[in-house]
Formats: sequence, structure tokens, C-alpha cells
Amino acid sequence: MNEKPRKPQKLKARLPRGFVDREAADIRAVNEMVGKIREVYERYGFDPVETPLFEYTDALGKFLPDADRPNEGVFSLQDDDDQWMSLRYDLTAPLARHVAENFQEIQLPYRTYRAGYVFRNEKPGPGRFRQFMQFDADTVGAPGVQADAEMCMMMADTLEALGIKRGDYVIRVNNRKVLDGVMEAIGVGGDENAARRLTVLRAIDKLDKFGTEGVTLLLGEGRKDESGDFTKGAGLNADQIEKVLFFVSITDYAESAVHLAELVAGTEKGAEGVDELNLIRSLVMGAGYGPDRIKIDPSVVRGLEYYTGPVYEAELTFDVTNEKGEKVVFGSVGGGGRYDGLVSRFMGQPVPATGFSIGVSRLMTALKNLGKLGADEVVAPVLVTVMDGDVESMGRYQQFTQDLRNAGIRAEMYQGNWKKFGNQLKYADRRGAPIAIIQGGDERAEGVVQIKDLIEGKRLSGEITDNAEWREARVAQEVVPEADLVAKVREILDAQAEDRRRAKQADA
Amino acid sequence: MNEKPRKPQKLKARLPRGFVDREAADIRAVNEMVGKIREVYERYGFDPVETPLFEYTDALGKFLPDADRPNEGVFSLQDDDDQWMSLRYDLTAPLARHVAENFQEIQLPYRTYRAGYVFRNEKPGPGRFRQFMQFDADTVGAPGVQADAEMCMMMADTLEALGIKRGDYVIRVNNRKVLDGVMEAIGVGGDENAARRLTVLRAIDKLDKFGTEGVTLLLGEGRKDESGDFTKGAGLNADQIEKVLFFVSITDYAESAVHLAELVAGTEKGAEGVDELNLIRSLVMGAGYGPDRIKIDPSVVRGLEYYTGPVYEAELTFDVTNEKGEKVVFGSVGGGGRYDGLVSRFMGQPVPATGFSIGVSRLMTALKNLGKLGADEVVAPVLVTVMDGDVESMGRYQQFTQDLRNAGIRAEMYQGNWKKFGNQLKYADRRGAPIAIIQGGDERAEGVVQIKDLIEGKRLSGEITDNAEWREARVAQEVVPEADLVAKVREILDAQAEDRRRAKQADA
Repeated sequence: MNEKPRKPQKLKARLPRGFVDREAADIRAVNEMVGKIREVYERYGFDPVETPLFEYTDALGKFLPDADRPNEGVFSLQDDDDQWMSLRYDLTAPLARHVAENFQEIQLPYRTYRAGYVFRNEKPGPGRFRQFMQFDADTVGAPGVQADAEMCMMMADTLEALGIKRGDYVIRVNNRKVLDGVMEAIGVGGDENAARRLTVLRAIDKLDKFGTEGVTLLLGEGRKDESGDFTKGAGLNADQIEKVLFFVSITDYAESAVHLAELVAGTEKGAEGVDELNLIRSLVMGAGYGPDRIKIDPSVVRGLEYYTGPVYEAELTFDVTNEKGEKVVFGSVGGGGRYDGLVSRFMGQPVPATGFSIGVSRLMTALKNLGKLGADEVVAPVLVTVMDGDVESMGRYQQFTQDLRNAGIRAEMYQGNWKKFGNQLKYADRRGAPIAIIQGGDERAEGVVQIKDLIEGKRLSGEITDNAEWREARVAQEVVPEADLVAKVREILDAQAEDRRRAKQADA
Repeated sequence: MNEKPRKPQKLKARLPRGFVDREAADIRAVNEMVGKIREVYERYGFDPVETPLFEYTDALGKFLPDADRPNEGVFSLQDDDDQWMSLRYDLTAPLARHVAENFQEIQLPYRTYRAGYVFRNEKPGPGRFRQFMQFDADTVGAPGVQADAEMCMMMADTLEALGIKRGDYVIRVNNRKVLDGVMEAIGVGGDENAARRLTVLRAIDKLDKFGTEGVTLLLGEGRKDESGDFTKGAGLNADQIEKVLFFVSITDYAESAVHLAELVAGTEKGAEGVDELNLIRSLVMGAGYGPDRIKIDPSVVRGLEYYTGPVYEAELTFDVTNEKGEKVVFGSVGGGGRYDGLVSRFMGQPVPATGFSIGVSRLMTALKNLGKLGADEVVAPVLVTVMDGDVESMGRYQQFTQDLRNAGIRAEMYQGNWKKFGNQLKYADRRGAPIAIIQGGDERAEGVVQIKDLIEGKRLSGEITDNAEWREARVAQEVVPEADLVAKVREILDAQAEDRRRAKQADA
């Protein structure tokens, strides 16, 4: 990107870094996906609510206004009364503000969902954008972990509604209280060990990346990477490390639950956390969600500091090929947890809450990989070409177009410079128009139109396909009376749709 | 609003001025409306495209960065490389940037639509918000007015698709070139008269408000309003004023077209403008859109300076009662025009374009007035109440809930503090839940559930309605085996839906 100062008189068309335009296929895919997710949330008894893109900066809670660096992480500006406003960086903080502001009118438990753009004022990179869409669901005013269990089931149902097979995903559940209990049990509880705990949590979070060996180093003295850089460790001793590793390596929760309970016995919150995990497990198992779908997994550490109880993550377990050509597990497409303190910041009373967020673009990428989007393929419009530009002819082309539309068929009259007819057919081709309608002076005098089947025409002029059986000889061009235009176009479109259906079947 | 400095430690939940949260009914209504509009645009052969909320400030073209007042009219901030970015204030300027930036890949004519939020950094007032939604459609690379004619027909079809009756709306069309021709004909053409022309245009724009008399004053020496304030006029003489008034008072274009042509004869663009209006008229008439739907109306002056040819406006013609209790015509819900210069700003070549914008909130208000939204009424969820909090009972409540959901029925298990049962029924009532499911220890032992029809229950305990015929005695509470839960709930929901249908019929 050219970062040299530009002459002000030269206006260059370019987007700010980290922002992108979205094309039709992408927009339609997201709409389709968001529609399916919405259906699940509605069925679970959630209703939509939406907040604006701006909040007062202090209400977002990430930081207080700082005149020197107001844009750290978020996009901020000062209103004309000098108050700092910021663009939301997630959908949870604005919901907390909304609930607190309307606490008197809101009926608790308050079950809502929302999809919308959020903004991060960060260095953009490949696949990292400064504006992206999240889709959240939250229950506010629900103190019991049955609400967290419901969130996990809803995430599972959502992924299945999107066409992701059972076995291709798993909802992993942990509890911050259990994590805290383990920390206390190994002697790094209390405020004075906050920094050290963070190092331990960060080490656990690297389990996928560095394996047990690497995490052992990070929990102990430290780890030197391939480039020779040294990361200082948490300084735990062998016994402490063993306990942490036991905890995060639990794969069969049912089998290890007793040992886990022993490990956190006597800690302030650990036992409570284990009880909560057990209750979540019973509830989801009772409702028919086995560990193939919702799994207690003590290695889940979600980054956000505001979580206070259960945390959960939706992971896609199938392999994809990354940009380096390596096979990797697709990984997380969303998650959340209990945040009992977020609404309370505004209130004089505790307001328990739990919810999760789906990363819309990332999930869409996954669904595209699986071929699960684009079911409702949109056919390009029929093109009514313009041979003559006099008012009467033009009126008639317009009438054809309108007749097609009134019959529910996508259609457009050519709107470019009509004088070069070749350009019109080139346009039809690039646009993927299925059919072109042509009427010159002779046809007009006879009251007929030419109908060109552009798809059949392309096929006839192209290579022969293998499956000869369904390649019945459709005529690529026909002349019909004006009165038969709509019926004939409909017939050709139907035949084309049937061809596509058969081609898809042949592929499958 | 409290504008005094607040103590920083007290966190207050409030939205910045001019921004609002949106509730479920509003969101569902907009979704329904946007869906219907999209269907029409798609049928016309338009495809979606979307730009991000930020643009470089200079690309928006409204003003160049001004370090002193960067926020005049738009929300702006400096990126970390010191370039000014702004939140878009409409959807047209970003489209122009998008086309210019991707000119090599884009197939012209480029037919697209987009709905999205735009931002105005203005003093908020009643009904005036700083974030609102627009829904635009544009054709870029279409030099002929057949593209403008198409836009007018599409606006008409859109309003009818939304349920607005023929006769309750009109699309009014004018042409900037004709306006320019009239100016030239009365001797206020040329760059040196730009300011004076603006005064004339502003006077014309006040025709609805002040009538012919007031506009005559504004075109002449000036006008004093009721409060005694004087607005200086354009200083036209009687002859000039007469010509302007003739022009803007044309109500039957067909009858006056000849006189209009005479008036602008010999001007640089006037005759061209009249020809264009005539062609638009022929095209729309030819396609069956009479002056009851699309009407040439020389009093249409759209504010934006970038229009270069046809301008058009969608007006709802029925009366509504305003906040002062007066009957007023609902008025404009959208409009647009030809902007041949907007994309060219970035390019070395001319790029003709035309398009329009619908004000989503305003149109939604109109549709609500007409009772045309909320056709797909959303029923609140069935509430599965919680009598006992032990794991086994809780699991069973969860199972009931999940069974209902799996049958496609909206359902939720109570997630608040279950210990006060009265709160659960109060919640069901406030939420509008149609049915409550109850199971205590005795029922659990017998394997049965209580099903409470909350709507029937309310009716039985309330006043008697007139139409006794369809008030068959439904039982407000039933006990059924667990296995029959879903079927029974479905039966009651169907009966409630039938009641609503009959009640609506009885109202109509």
C-alpha cells in the first residue's frame, strides 16, 4: 500500500486498511446462515434486541478515556459535549448497558439474541479485519447453571441446523471456579498471585499448540522456541505441574470427576465449580446430549476476564488445509460463558448472566468448506436486449421485461449503451444470464421474439459431456409469438434447473 | 439530560444522545419489510453488495479533512497513520468509491442494492436520530433515462409489494436539466448566478409549506414570517416569477409539455431535459404505469447537489395525524436521481449512474400506520416451569422443553430463581407465554404433566366477549401423560391460532 503523502487534488478510490467490501455470494451466504441460526434461537424462546453501534466509552468498560491514546483497541471520538464515545467491540458490553438502563421495564430472565457488526482498532492482517459480524445469545437474570447448560445445547442445535454433522463438532465446557480451585489447591490462589495465575492460564491455553511437553516447560522454568526466544515460565514445582497437567489432560470427565473433586477439595470455589460441571453434565445428558456433542473439558480457558463460572466453546473437529498446505483441525467458531459481574457494574445489585457469541465470518468459511451454503442458488436475470432505441421499441422491451417480472422471473432490460449489440451479449455472458430476449425490426413487425438459451448455447458450442443421457437436444434459440414469451422463458428456466439438479446428482 | 460533570467512579448506564436501542417488534417489522423490498429488487435483476461503515473522509466527498472541526456533519477520526476516516453518511458515496476501486472487475451496467446503517453527526431531536437505516438501489454505467424510468417503476412496485394501495402513493419525477433550462430562460443561468439559483431552488422547495403566495415573495423581494423574521428573496421580477411559477405549478404534464418546451427553448440543457422527461413518461406509460402511479411533476426539487438529470421521489399521499393533532399528508419515504459525476470524481472517464434511497424507519412508520406489518405474528414461547430443583427433576423439565423444541414449538424452561413459583407464572404472563407446563412431585410419580392454557385461562377469568359462537369451552387446564405432552401443546396452540384468526375476522 502506498503510504506516501498524496496530492490532495488527486482523489483515490480506496478503503481504509482492515475494511472490506462484501460481494453478492458472501452476503447471500451470510443471510442464509443468519436466518437458520435465528430459527434455532427463536425456537429456544429468545427474542431479538439491538443496540446502536456507539456507546459511551466508559460504559464499554474496557478502559477509561485517555486523551493521549483514545483509540487503543477501540475506535473512539469525542462528542460535541466532550464526552468520549466508542464503536462497540463486542455485543456483550452493550447488552449489559441496555439491561441496566432499562432494568425497571425488563422482565427477567431476559432472553435475547442479536447479530451485528463490531469493531476493533487493531493492526489488520491476513484474515484479520477491523469490522466483523458476531451473532450472540444471552440470558440475563438466570442464576443457575441450567441456563449455561441450555446455551450449550443451543450451540449444538445451531451447528446441526447449519448442516454440520454430529461428530464434526463438539461443545467443550469448563468452569472458571474449578480453574480457580486448582490454582488455590496448588498454592497460587489469592490476589497476590494474580500475575502468576495469568501465566499458568496462558500456558494451559497453549496445550493445542505446544503439547504436554511444551506446557510443562511453560508451567515450570520457561520455554525456548525454535528461534531461540525464551518465554519465562510460571515457576511451578514438579508436584504443582503434575496437578495442573492432570487437570487439563482430563479427557473422560466421568472417570476423572472423583479425582478432580479430591484435587479441589477444601478450596473456596473449586468444589462449587465441580458441582456445577456435574449438574450441567446431568442436564445435557438427560436431554439426550452425550459427550459426542457436549463434553466437559477442563482444558478450555476462554480469554475474557469477565467470566465468573461456566465457560463453553464450540469447536469444529474436522480437518481443513491451512494456507501453508497443512491439515489442521478447523477449531473454535464461537463460545461464551457466565458473566455475573458485567451488568452489576451499573447496578447496586447482582445480576447473573450467561451467553455466547458466534464469529459469523469464521463459521461461514467452515460451512463453505463443507459445501453447506448456497442451497438456494440465485439464478441471474433474463436479459432483454435492446436492438432499437426509438421510444416505441424501447417501450416494448420494457414491457417484455415487466411481463417477466410480474410472472416472478428475474429480468432486466439492457441499460448500457445499446448501440453496440455485441456488448449486450458479452454482458449477458459475464453476468451469467440464463436467457437473452432479442427483437429487431423484422420480428417486431411480425409480433415475435427470439429467445436465446444461453446455457444450452454455451454447452452446445463447448465440449461434449460424459453423461449423454440427460443431454437431450434442447434448442438453443427459438422464435415465439410475443404472447408466448413468459411461458417459453419459464419452460427454458425449468429445463435449466432440471439440468443443474441432474448435474449435482451426477457429481454426488 | 444531566450535562454536569460526573464522578468517574459512578458508572451510569445510558446511551449517547441521538442513538436508540431497538426492541423485538421493531426488529421483526424491519426484517419483514426489508425482505419484501429485497424480493422486488432481486426480481428486477439487482444483486446485493455491501461496503464497510468506514470510508476515508476525502472519498466521501462532503468535505476535506479540517483538523479544527473534523466532525462537522459526519463522525470522523484519525487512523494511526494520521489519515482521516469517517462513518458513511449515506450509501451512495461509498458505492461510488466501490465502483471506482473495482472498475476493472465490475461488469457495467452494475445493478446493485444494499441496506445498512448511516450516521449523521447532528443535533438529535424528536424523531431525528444519529444512526438510521437506508435501503438503496443503483445502476452504474447506464447513460440512458430508461434506467431512471426503471427506478421509478421499481419504487412503485416496491410500495405495492409492501401493501400500499394504488392511489395511496405516487412517484413524482422531474429533471434537473429542465430546472437549469428554466433558470437560463429567465436570465439567471451561468456560474455567476449560482448563489441566486440556489435561492430560487430553495424557494421552490417551500411550495408545500408556504403555498404560491409565500413562494412568490421568496422569489421576489423576500418574505416576513409570523414571528417577524425576514427572509431575503431571489430578487426576480414579475415576469421571471411568473415563468417559475408556471413551471412549478404544472400538474397535468401532458397538457403543459408544449408550453414547457417553449419556455426552455434555446437554453443549453432545457430542451434535452424535456425530451428526457417525455421519454421517461412514454416508457413508464408503455409498461402500464399511468400518472396515478408515476407522475411528471416539475415542483420536485431534491436537495442533493450531485444530481445531474432526472430526480424522483416516492410520496405517500394518505393523511396521517401529526404530533400536533393535525391531519397532514404522510409525504416522502424515499427518492433519488441521476448522479453522473459521483463515480467520475475518482476516474479519468465519465461514469453515468442513477439510483434511489428508501428511509427504512420512516417507511416502517407509514406501514405500521396502515397496519401492513406484523403479518407473521410471533407467538411467545411455551414456559416449562420448575417446581423442584434436584438434578433429576430439572433434567426432566429440560427434556420436556427439548421435546417441544424438536417438534418446532418455541419453548423455554424457567431460568430465574425457581423457588418462588408465583414469579414463574408472573413471568409467563408478562412474557405473553401461551401455555405453561407444570410438574410437581405427585405428577412426576404418576408420569403426567399439567398443561395450563394461559390465554384461555385469562379469557375465562375475564369479561365475556360478544361473539359467543367461537368461544367454545376449551378447558384452561389439563393433565396428560408425559408422552402426550407435545401433541396436547400443539392442539392448544392450534386452537389459540384459530381464535386469533376468528378475532381478526370479527374485527375486519
